[in-house]
Formats: sequence, C-alpha cells, structure tokens
Amino acid sequence: MSKLIYITRRERFSAAHKLSKSNWSDEKNYEVFGKCANPNWHGHNYDLYVTVKGEVKPETGFVMDLKLLSDLIKSLVIEHLDHKNINLDTPFMEGIMASTENICIAIWEQLEGVVAEHGAALHYIKLQETENNFVEYYG
Amino acid sequence: MSKLIYITRRERFSAAHKLSKSNWSDEKNYEVFGKCANPNWHGHNYDLYVTVKGEVKPETGFVMDLKLLSDLIKSLVIEHLDHKNINLDTPFMEGIMASTENICIAIWEQLEGVVAEHGAALHYIKLQETENNFVEYYG
Amino acid sequence: MSKLIYITRRERFSAAHKLSKSNWSDEKNYEVFGKCANPNWHGHNYDLYVTVKGEVKPETGFVMDLKLLSDLIKSLVIEHLDHKNINLDTPFMEGIMASTENICIAIWEQLEGVVAEHGAALHYIKLQETENNFVEYYG
Amino acid sequence: MSKLIYITRRERFSAAHKLSKSNWSDEKNYEVFGKCANPNWHGHNYDLYVTVKGEVKPETGFVMDLKLLSDLIKSLVIEHLDHKNINLDTPFMEGIMASTENICIAIWEQLEGVVAEHGAALHYIKLQETENNFVEYYG
Amino acid sequence: MSKLIYITRRERFSAAHKLSKSNWSDEKNYEVFGKCANPNWHGHNYDLYVTVKGEVKPETGFVMDLKLLSDLIKSLVIEHLDHKNINLDTPFMEGIMASTENICIAIWEQLEGVVAEHGAALHYIKLQETENNFVEYYG
Amino acid sequence: MSKLIYITRRERFSAAHKLSKSNWSDEKNYEVFGKCANPNWHGHNYDLYVTVKGEVKPETGFVMDLKLLSDLIKSLVIEHLDHKNINLDTPFMEGIMASTENICIAIWEQLEGVVAEHGAALHYIKLQETENNFVEYYG
Repeated sequence: MSKLIYITRRERFSAAHKLSKSNWSDEKNYEVFGKCANPNWHGHNYDLYVTVKGEVKPETGFVMDLKLLSDLIKSLVIEHLDHKNINLDTPFMEGIMASTENICIAIWEQLEGVVAEHGAALHYIKLQETENNFVEYYG
Repeated sequence: MSKLIYITRRERFSAAHKLSKSNWSDEKNYEVFGKCANPNWHGHNYDLYVTVKGEVKPETGFVMDLKLLSDLIKSLVIEHLDHKNINLDTPFMEGIMASTENICIAIWEQLEGVVAEHGAALHYIKLQETENNFVEYYG
Repeated sequence: MSKLIYITRRERFSAAHKLSKSNWSDEKNYEVFGKCANPNWHGHNYDLYVTVKGEVKPETGFVMDLKLLSDLIKSLVIEHLDHKNINLDTPFMEGIMASTENICIAIWEQLEGVVAEHGAALHYIKLQETENNFVEYYG
Repeated sequence: MSKLIYITRRERFSAAHKLSKSNWSDEKNYEVFGKCANPNWHGHNYDLYVTVKGEVKPETGFVMDLKLLSDLIKSLVIEHLDHKNINLDTPFMEGIMASTENICIAIWEQLEGVVAEHGAALHYIKLQETENNFVEYYG
Repeated sequence: MSKLIYITRRERFSAAHKLSKSNWSDEKNYEVFGKCANPNWHGHNYDLYVTVKGEVKPETGFVMDLKLLSDLIKSLVIEHLDHKNINLDTPFMEGIMASTENICIAIWEQLEGVVAEHGAALHYIKLQETENNFVEYYG
Repeated sequence: MSKLIYITRRERFSAAHKLSKSNWSDEKNYEVFGKCANPNWHGHNYDLYVTVKGEVKPETGFVMDLKLLSDLIKSLVIEHLDHKNINLDTPFMEGIMASTENICIAIWEQLEGVVAEHGAALHYIKLQETENNFVEYYG
C-alpha cells in the first residue's frame, strides 16, 4: 500500500516592490494600498516554502532529492527575485500587481511542471512577507 | 478559472487564566488540570493566526485587505483578551472553560460573520499558547 | 453538532545518522546522498510536531490532556531517538534507511494506536531536520 | 594562560502578574502603568537566560555542567514562578513591584551564591517578557 | 547601592535600499557591492533593538516606561524608514551610503538625546537585516 | 572621531559528536557526561555567530564585506564541521574533548588571524547547540 508523504524546502529572498496602479491617481493608490503605495519603493525579506508530495522511493528513502529541489527553486525562482525589484526586474511578474498573493501564484507556475518531471507533485507554496503576514496556495 | 488562495494575519495578546471547575474540589482540580489549576491564576503570551480564503481581486491583487483584517481581529478579539483575565474579563468566554481549545473556537465565532461580509471566507484559526503547544480549528 | 479541533505538541531530540546503502560502493553512496553519506556520521537537532484531533470534552475543555500526549511521545519516541544514533540505536528504525521521510513514518506507527486508546485520533506528524527542511505525514 | 568563556542556559515559565500600587487610586495606576494595571491580572510566557562564566575544566571540557545549572534554575527560580501569580505566589517577590526589571534582579539574587558554590560565576541574566521587550542584568 | 539594569524594545520596519556610489561605474559598483548594487533597488524586513540603561525607579519598578520608549522610536525612527526607500525618503540618511552599519549609527544619533531627556541612557542599538546578518553599536 | 561598530554573520552546520574520555570506564563516562556519552554518537544542528569589529570605511559604509566574512567562515570552519563527526573528522579538534566550549574556542583560533588580515578584528564567537544551550567567547 502506498504512503503519501510531504517534504518541504525553505528558501529566502530580499526584494523591493510597491503596490500601485499606473492608471490611478496617487491619492487613489494611497487610499487603497496605504503605505505600500510609496512611489519610491519599499522591500521585504521573504521566506518561501515549497512542498512536494509523493511516495517514498525504496532505494533512497526519499520522495525527491532535497538538494535537487533546492537547485530548481534557486534557478527558476530565487534567481529572478533576490535583490531585485519585483515590479521592474522579475520576468514572470511582468504586468502583474506585485501583491504577495500574485507572487505566490506566479512561483507555483514556475515550479509545477519541473517538479512533475522529477517524479513528485507540487503540493503547496507558502510565501511569508513578514512575521505577521503570509499567503498559501495549493494550485 | 478561479484560483483559491489563503492569506494569514498574525496578532498577539498576553492574558491570565486558570483551568478549574467551581463545582469540583481543589484536589480534583489539581488532579485533572495540574499546575494549570493554580487558584491565583497564571498567564501566557498567545500568538493568534487567522487565515481567510478567496480569489484574488484583479484590481488590487488582494484576497482581502490585510490592514482591514488586522483591524477586525483587533477590535473583535484582541481588545477583549490582551492584558485581561480570560476567566473574568472576556465577554465571549463567559461560562466557558478557558482551555486553548475553547478560546480558539470562541475566536472563530467572533470573526466568521464579519469576514464573510467583506467578501472572503474564514478558513482556519491557530492559537499558540507556548512554543510547544497549539490548537487549530477549521469551523 | 460536533466540533472537530486539532491540538499539537512539539518535542525535540538530537541524534546522529547517515544515509548510505551497505550494498553500494562509497562512490555510489556519495553520488546519491552527497555529504549525508559521511561514513563517520553527522547529526541534527530535530523538532517533532504531533497533532491529534477530536472533539472538545465538555468537562475539561480538552481534546486530549497535553501532558499525557507529551508523556506518550517521550516514552515511545524521544526515548529511542534523543542522543542516539538512529542507524544503530533505534529499535523502530532497524533495517530502514534513516531518511527524514522514513523516520517520520516510523514515528507515526509508534503513536497511532496509543493515541486512539486515549479517545483522540492521530492526525499529522511533522519532522523538521533543519530550518530549511521538513517532512509531513498524515498516515 | 586562562581562557574565560561564557555558557548560557535558557529556561521558560508562564505566569500572571499586574502592575499597581495599593496606595494609589485605580486612576493613578492606569495612568502610570496602562493596561498592565488590569486589576484582574494578565500574564506572559517568559524566557529566562542565565549566563555563567569561568575557565574550561581540562577533564570535562565544561565550565559548569549544564544539566546541573538547569536543575539549580528549576529548583530555585522556575518552581516559584511557573504557572504562578508573581504578585501573590512567589516568595522572593513579596513586597516588590512585579516589573520585569525587578523580577530579573530577584532571579539574580536567587542564583548568584549557588553558582559560585559550584566553581563558576554568575555573569548575566536576561528576562524576555514578549518578543519585543526584555531586560538584562549583570549584578 | 545602585543597580544598573538594561531594558530593550524591539521594533520592526520594511524598507528598500541599494548600495552604490554615483561616481563609480556600474561595473565597479557590482564588483564592490555585488547584488546589493541592483540599480532597481531591493529590500528587507529590519529588526531594530534599542537598549537603554539606568537604575530602577522605586515608585514604578521601571528604568523607563517601555510604552514611552516605543513611542519615541516610532516617531523618530520607524516613521522615517518603514515602507520607505532609505536612499531617497529618509531625511537622516541623506548623503550617507545605506549600509546596515550607517543606518545603525544614524538611528543612534536620532535617539541618544531624547532618551537622556527621559532619565535613562541609550546603551546599544542592534539592527538585524536578515536572519544571518546584524550590526551592533554602542555609540 | 572614530566610531567602533560590530557586525555579525551567522552560519550553520550539522555534526555528530560524543563526550567521553578513552581512559575512563563506560560507567564513569555516563556518570559525568550523561546521555552525551552514548558510544554510538549523537548530533546537533549548530548555529555559529561570528562578530567582527572595526570602524566604518567611508568608501563602502562597511566594517568588512559580509560576503568575504561568510566565505572565510565557510572555508576555514564550516567545511571541516558540516556533516562531519567532530571527534573523528575535524582536524582542528584532534585530541580535544568535543564540548561546545572547546569547539567554540577552536573556531576562534581558526578565524582570529585571517580576520585581522582583512582590516577588522575578531570580537566574539557564539556557538549555539540547542535552543536552550549556547557558549560565548571573546578570546
């Protein structure tokens, strides 16, 4: 009988962003987004948790090699976010409001296919913006 | 196609409580509740995590404005618990044993309706009493 | 109407292990398991989270007495892992590759029956090996 | 040549307290102590760090056996504070305002002599009331 | 006899910055500052610890009212840093390289005088940029 | 006027060790070192904090480039400890009891000279073995 198990890798990045819509006035942007609309950008240290699921392989005792998972997250996600401006520098966020929700969904889309190619399934992404705020997504 | 996403706000409070039943003897209370039955009260720093779910609004990139969620938690929950005695001072705990389980359920009941009025759905409450103990509730 | 609630106890242990298969060459072991194959062992501080679920008992406000849950985890799990070599000293890991996945599954099997005997149900085990890596299991 | 080194043990306790002076009016107490004056008590999870210093003993590689230090802290300090009301139940706080500063100083006085009897010197006490507030004392 | 004691308040802010000198080429800036020179900014969640020292006042048991200390830090420091671009928006960082070292020293200068006016002495500032990096300053 | 400032880098490693003296009986070793004497080894995740001090360089705003400090710690310390057996595999611990105190002092000796060569001064090493135990050394 199969035993489904979940394994998680944490990676971190620091990035700048702002929340504002170019077709809104400054007043409207402040009203809706508060201090997150500061036109001169602000930033965060983000914690990213990526959970994959699958059965334990008898040979290795692994669902998926965590070193490989870490390498995939680094090359497909962290590389494009760390010490970047998410609104300006991150290809997979082009034209998308840089809310924590939207960044989390975009990270899922970066990783879903490549995890499947390595015999596991992407299960869950958690993106933590501050100690007090985080977003979770199951696809 | 809709994309369900979860967003969490953490708030904290410090409170005193004890666990005991008035119709039990002191001996019975100590036997069942241990040092938590100390008649002179004891207390904790609680961490409260409130998760709401919904779809991302295209205008804002938000499920729900976290500033608004924080304000609701503060006025409906934290205000009645922080620097209070949960057994004596908290209206929504009147007549209820102040176990972590019961506080968690009572907080759910404070928030469920008001979150729904703001276009999201309450998904999950986690109440952490110490580094080693926490309770989770999905309604 | 019943209200299902989840309560979690964290316990910790420090242990040594290595990842290697005796019928593989050293080269093959290093290739598959990397630095985790160091023949002289290495070790970790593990954080173990055990979640049980059930309804709140009206008398106590508890799902299950956390002191009792802690005692069960200590005698059935921690006792056999803390300050031990998981490959050599832990009876319930005999003949099993000491991956985090397999340790987590073995801990589930140690606890499932005894939690049920005390009127709750084992729901979830999380085993955290480092700040960056953890495994979760729901049976 | 001697090598001075510092070793620290953390212990934790949960307690209730309030800040108020019996010869002040309720209004005066609220004005000076804010919500900490709540007459029905409130509480915290405290983290206590005790640092001793000395030279490394050649036989053991230890300044002082940490198990022994932990036992001394538990019997002389934690026993009188954990799941207690600091204003009412703690002998070494009798007649003293239960501010974090005063609790920290009183803990120093409990431990200084007994650490010296075991061949080390008490160096530092840190008492953390919340994530945001802590007090430090060097005697 | 007087008893010197130390009390610390933690506050947090999120900000954007970059490290670069306007009179250096982009190549020189990348060579010296690495990814911190990204011209489109990046950001962090900073943890700020402010320690003041003094004697315990007999009336209150306090060195200094922590609520007051928190209010001073918020109005003189956090207000100018949180959700700001440190290079562009922070008056007390004008013309100064926005390294963690320099921000820490500038915060000291904002607070030293005003703490002294309230009967305590500023002792120490710690500014934590990430889990792995922090700076400390004693004036 | 010069301004002395302190900057800290955290690195981590996982290692196995045991505490025992080869010329003592097993009974004597258990009596003195408790479960740390388990002959089959046990292990920990260690957190290492390295603090250097100096003045801020006007050109860079740095005391010392943290990337360089991190590289030095990795090549001189972490490389010899991570996923190793400290008693058997770590050249700079040969013939030394693997207590946290002694590991901390040995790390100081690895780093003191090389930090001085880069224009800063080694100030402090903290080695954290568990959440509850850590050692500090100032040379």
